[in-house]
Amino acid sequence: MHALLTTWTGEIAHEWVDYNGHMRDAYYLLLFSFASDGLMDLIGLDAAGREASGHTFYSLETHLNYLREVKEGAGVEVRTQILGLDTKRVDVYHGMYLQGTDTLLAANEQMLINIDTAGPHSTPFSAAVRDKLAALAAAHLGLPRPAYAGRAIAMPLPKHG
Amino acid sequence: MHALLTTWTGEIAHEWVDYNGHMRDAYYLLLFSFASDGLMDLIGLDAAGREASGHTFYSLETHLNYLREVKEGAGVEVRTQILGLDTKRVDVYHGMYLQGTDTLLAANEQMLINIDTAGPHSTPFSAAVRDKLAALAAAHLGLPRPAYAGRAIAMPLPKHG
Repeated sequence: MHALLTTWTGEIAHEWVDYNGHMRDAYYLLLFSFASDGLMDLIGLDAAGREASGHTFYSLETHLNYLREVKEGAGVEVRTQILGLDTKRVDVYHGMYLQGTDTLLAANEQMLINIDTAGPHSTPFSAAVRDKLAALAAAHLGLPRPAYAGRAIAMPLPKHG
Repeated sequence: MHALLTTWTGEIAHEWVDYNGHMRDAYYLLLFSFASDGLMDLIGLDAAGREASGHTFYSLETHLNYLREVKEGAGVEVRTQILGLDTKRVDVYHGMYLQGTDTLLAANEQMLINIDTAGPHSTPFSAAVRDKLAALAAAHLGLPRPAYAGRAIAMPLPKHG
């Protein structure tokens, strides 16, 4: 249980590549959004679970660091760590790696909130989802805090000389 | 010159809407990515300018706050402010509004870096681009700092009582 979750595996699609010849910034986030879907599948919020419970997740806030270019056709995988949890929010950290390697391509932190779709309004996790998230969060507590968690954008100070 | 720039105007496309019936998180960023293209057009880095100079911008880091749901067909516009600038980096702030209103739907800060595509490697802005960005940055210095600039994701403390 102490390992990161693999939440998405696949290849960089043709339609994700821009005029610079590499994956457009927004499609990194689409891939991470699919990884969040992968996490939801693992905790009982796949399409059937969303339908049965009337619950889903919305994104409140996201932060993304672009570390390396990614070209069309590259095989990548997303490894996911739960950084925090309260009654209705979960702080999720995704790392995108070249498949089968420890080469980190991009990092994305997402604050997700549980939603009752009948509102829509925020609502505590169902007991089943909460228990699964709590088990993951407890297992991930032993992992190092990732380098790109909790970042804010700031203009670096000019270098002297 | 003291007004925000309008860098994208349009409607929310069908393919940007997800199983929750509203715009998927990643497509907010696609729209903001188009707004950054709009900014590049305004400073001489449209397709012709990129071809002539061999320069383009890459994203280093992005932060996005989701404030309101956006449905298919909604008319929106992005207003853009330059928050900071050095010799090769620009800190750009985009607000997505319901068209013709001050209803803020989402906010996105992006740190962009100028790239010589022959490397590719980072390189100072060309003189023409630098002068245009510097004029915008000077004009925008008089504007209030936006509420969602410089944010970091953090789990809120539990409420007492």
